[in-house]
Amino acid sequence: MTAPDWLRLNWGRWGADDQRGTLNYITPEVTQAAARLVRRGVTYDLGTTVETSAPRTAARLPTIRSTRRRGGATGRAFGDDYVTLNTHTSTHVDSLAHVWWDGQLYNGHDAEAHVTSWDGATRNGIETMGGFVTRGVLLDVAGHRGIPHLPHGHRISARELEDTAQAQGVTVRSGDALLVRTGWVRVWSEDRERFLRDTPGLGEDGMLEYLHGHQVAVLGSDNVAVEAWDPGVVIPLHTPLIRGFGLVLLELLDLERLAADRVHEFLFVASPLRITGALGSPLNPLAVA
Amino acid sequence: MTAPDWLRLNWGRWGADDQRGTLNYITPEVTQAAARLVRRGVTYDLGTTVETSAPRTAARLPTIRSTRRRGGATGRAFGDDYVTLNTHTSTHVDSLAHVWWDGQLYNGHDAEAHVTSWDGATRNGIETMGGFVTRGVLLDVAGHRGIPHLPHGHRISARELEDTAQAQGVTVRSGDALLVRTGWVRVWSEDRERFLRDTPGLGEDGMLEYLHGHQVAVLGSDNVAVEAWDPGVVIPLHTPLIRGFGLVLLELLDLERLAADRVHEFLFVASPLRITGALGSPLNPLAVA
Amino acid sequence: MTAPDWLRLNWGRWGADDQRGTLNYITPEVTQAAARLVRRGVTYDLGTTVETSAPRTAARLPTIRSTRRRGGATGRAFGDDYVTLNTHTSTHVDSLAHVWWDGQLYNGHDAEAHVTSWDGATRNGIETMGGFVTRGVLLDVAGHRGIPHLPHGHRISARELEDTAQAQGVTVRSGDALLVRTGWVRVWSEDRERFLRDTPGLGEDGMLEYLHGHQVAVLGSDNVAVEAWDPGVVIPLHTPLIRGFGLVLLELLDLERLAADRVHEFLFVASPLRITGALGSPLNPLAVA
Amino acid sequence: MTAPDWLRLNWGRWGADDQRGTLNYITPEVTQAAARLVRRGVTYDLGTTVETSAPRTAARLPTIRSTRRRGGATGRAFGDDYVTLNTHTSTHVDSLAHVWWDGQLYNGHDAEAHVTSWDGATRNGIETMGGFVTRGVLLDVAGHRGIPHLPHGHRISARELEDTAQAQGVTVRSGDALLVRTGWVRVWSEDRERFLRDTPGLGEDGMLEYLHGHQVAVLGSDNVAVEAWDPGVVIPLHTPLIRGFGLVLLELLDLERLAADRVHEFLFVASPLRITGALGSPLNPLAVA
Repeated sequence: MTAPDWLRLNWGRWGADDQRGTLNYITPEVTQAAARLVRRGVTYDLGTTVETSAPRTAARLPTIRSTRRRGGATGRAFGDDYVTLNTHTSTHVDSLAHVWWDGQLYNGHDAEAHVTSWDGATRNGIETMGGFVTRGVLLDVAGHRGIPHLPHGHRISARELEDTAQAQGVTVRSGDALLVRTGWVRVWSEDRERFLRDTPGLGEDGMLEYLHGHQVAVLGSDNVAVEAWDPGVVIPLHTPLIRGFGLVLLELLDLERLAADRVHEFLFVASPLRITGALGSPLNPLAVA
Repeated sequence: MTAPDWLRLNWGRWGADDQRGTLNYITPEVTQAAARLVRRGVTYDLGTTVETSAPRTAARLPTIRSTRRRGGATGRAFGDDYVTLNTHTSTHVDSLAHVWWDGQLYNGHDAEAHVTSWDGATRNGIETMGGFVTRGVLLDVAGHRGIPHLPHGHRISARELEDTAQAQGVTVRSGDALLVRTGWVRVWSEDRERFLRDTPGLGEDGMLEYLHGHQVAVLGSDNVAVEAWDPGVVIPLHTPLIRGFGLVLLELLDLERLAADRVHEFLFVASPLRITGALGSPLNPLAVA
Repeated sequence: MTAPDWLRLNWGRWGADDQRGTLNYITPEVTQAAARLVRRGVTYDLGTTVETSAPRTAARLPTIRSTRRRGGATGRAFGDDYVTLNTHTSTHVDSLAHVWWDGQLYNGHDAEAHVTSWDGATRNGIETMGGFVTRGVLLDVAGHRGIPHLPHGHRISARELEDTAQAQGVTVRSGDALLVRTGWVRVWSEDRERFLRDTPGLGEDGMLEYLHGHQVAVLGSDNVAVEAWDPGVVIPLHTPLIRGFGLVLLELLDLERLAADRVHEFLFVASPLRITGALGSPLNPLAVA
Repeated sequence: MTAPDWLRLNWGRWGADDQRGTLNYITPEVTQAAARLVRRGVTYDLGTTVETSAPRTAARLPTIRSTRRRGGATGRAFGDDYVTLNTHTSTHVDSLAHVWWDGQLYNGHDAEAHVTSWDGATRNGIETMGGFVTRGVLLDVAGHRGIPHLPHGHRISARELEDTAQAQGVTVRSGDALLVRTGWVRVWSEDRERFLRDTPGLGEDGMLEYLHGHQVAVLGSDNVAVEAWDPGVVIPLHTPLIRGFGLVLLELLDLERLAADRVHEFLFVASPLRITGALGSPLNPLAVA
């Protein structure tokens, strides 16, 4: 048996026009079962704040918010805001048009024709994604090792995910949102230079097989790229996962409170803004336990 | 018995420091019960797209999205976007700092000190709201009357909401997200000038008593202001609801598919972006049935 | 003798690295002579205001300005603004990277390599232009014909420019900023739909020969494209003028006051913002008479 | 004789409706005479580039430029940009609505009524300023002392300006644009933290009397505030100069090339963008010698 062609793994699997990729694993049955995981009725925000000082890489500039007021000290008054932001800062989701290879997007769509600076993405844009409601599983790799965060540059192997799952007593299933905790997001407030160097995250060792074998629908982590990341170094997993799998990635999650409460299985809800043509969206995903 | 002071109705009710208002009605028990409403496992997006042509009032300018690409026709390539938007365009939520009266916000916070154009809201800002998960109820007033949308300028009374609920066989309960359908959002694509004149929506007749009596936690509609709206005319409900009740308002919802499927009771999930200091946020709320 | 290759007319003329094109016609002698045209000491602003309602084509969205205040009713207070704008709205200058053909910019620079959405223009960007000070000549074609503005869709010929110059008693010289008045900018405030249909402006008849023969350095007009323009219709002069000549174009000028005062020859000063990588810049050119 | 009330010095001097302040010193005669200063015909750009890394204080966020392309590798193609910027970053001019005191702007206009985050400035906004053409004088204080830049925190006295002028052989006259060189702008590229601490600049010693006595129309320097500046420390000159004098301030000028060429007297031209309601504007002022 030959290795699968990871760069076009799921092309055609859900039809030639599909733009939702692994979200197709989230069947109505998966959603139904996920809803039954709500036991205490407690909601956890997994999104960081969206603000000037929110986590980002150097190529994405700080968010600008400018608030307007109308009315004075007496009577009726109100206000609103203008916000300018990069779609890949703060906690965000990558659309399936965020990354491509040899001119093709996930499912074979032509990137030269369908991703332009003028129109944005006319295939796989974030507005086609919609909200998703599924089972969430937290694999707290740092917590499993008893350390506040994984060491610089650490690359998590598939085996390490399996060990963590076993220790936590959870099993990853088809359609899951798999959230991997490195503890790294807390470094942001301590040392921003360090936060962006040798970021720990998922490594290549057995990872594509693992994610494909478990039919993971959504993959998220508390670092900038889900996988291990360094400025200027090519990251190996983004292209097969987004372009080949059609896998939905969530980055810069805040998993601290969930980990502190040892919540490892929960109802997971994420709802990107439906920004027409955009290659991603900030969002505040929720875990409901 | 004297009438309540609607403009400070719930001040202090959930503590002097409270910034979440009627979201406090959404107790863990309410969230637990709401999760049990998921039967078919079907998710409905209730948010419009965020784009240049999305619904808005004249004072809020169109959203600008500009996409960036990096890399060429061969090998690895990727992109992201910058977006400039007003927080009160497209489907959005009002923060409890959006409207104030005589210099005071919901819960008595000082608006002159706590809402500035420089810092935004340092009380009741949208980042304090977090996501919420509760029971959703659709009251399809237009559907109940068998018309595509309510007539120009129509003001829905509390009695009309009660009649609609009864006809649909639903009961409004403490902690609910109450979604009122006028059908008006579809006018946007037909005639934008008309969309903003004599908008039908909630009227004053019995409405404050109704919303307070039922302990509604979230109120949404498919028009620009939840209540009936005309350019330049003062709207009577916004100030008591936001400043007095601390009631969370959702505007410009897309309720068309929900109404077509006659889904009147469901799990409702909304998660504003946590934009520090902002007076609102675009979002894509979900109904799960 | 064969016709010149207009699409690469001035390539190499001022060196292989040149990024300033016809601004090279503005020698120190031209600038010296222009300064001597200041007689009355009166300055005319030729720029429209930069604001939401400023002239623009449909593809360029309105300018957003959001002002911030700091400080209160007593003592010291101050403010600033955030502005989001398209570089080709209001009165603006086109950089020599604004238009290209078959993958090449003015002077043969490779457009695929040197104009990207990520970095902007790394050749011929507006920051390389700098301010320019030269003789300005107003050719008031509408005024010459005694009408408030040229008719819909009118295409001005080279002969018409010559007739106007002769009637006004001016001669176009090497290094001039040639400003052609159609009167069309005043239509903007009357009827915005009409402003963008069948816009009168320069036509092809003898025009390339005329502009080349007179060594015009800067060409401006009071319409959206200097040349006649219709939405969706390819305009014939932009590509040879920008890519072939390296000619600096100014659009959406306000020439009304200059025309009213019959000022046909003056010191002309224009100074684009030095926005690194940008394909144009808003600006407020000046005529000093 | 009592000291003048610097905080309302020129109120009413040019009429109750005046919004141009000391620009009124630039009479047609002043402009005429300035034009005669053009001898070599050489133009100097005094503006820094407008880009992410341009000089700014911490409260003003970096400029965002996002370029759009339309068209492909063959045939016709073009592009433009969206830019989001703070009006007080890079080389910029302060409008006469930038600073106020006790609720009053220059010339007594009511700041609470006329400077709002919603509408910007409806008095003294930058669109009322227009371009100005006058005599420019460079006082190279650092050069006079033979050092690359003034020391940390140095406060220039009026006497020091006089000494520099005398050594350079220039006399300051009514209507001049007075440009004071500290050499500090070059620190920006070396050490950004240091650039914003203990910035040298104009001090209080005799300064108001000097600027008033010489009828200076425009005052510029190559630092962030013209006067000496430290983060969080109240600066004493801004309020009397802007609110009392109606004096036009230019900040973050690049005077290096002018100083290197020892150009101390020249034609000076500055032309702010006419951004309706804005409290300032980026610009690229020119010196023509």
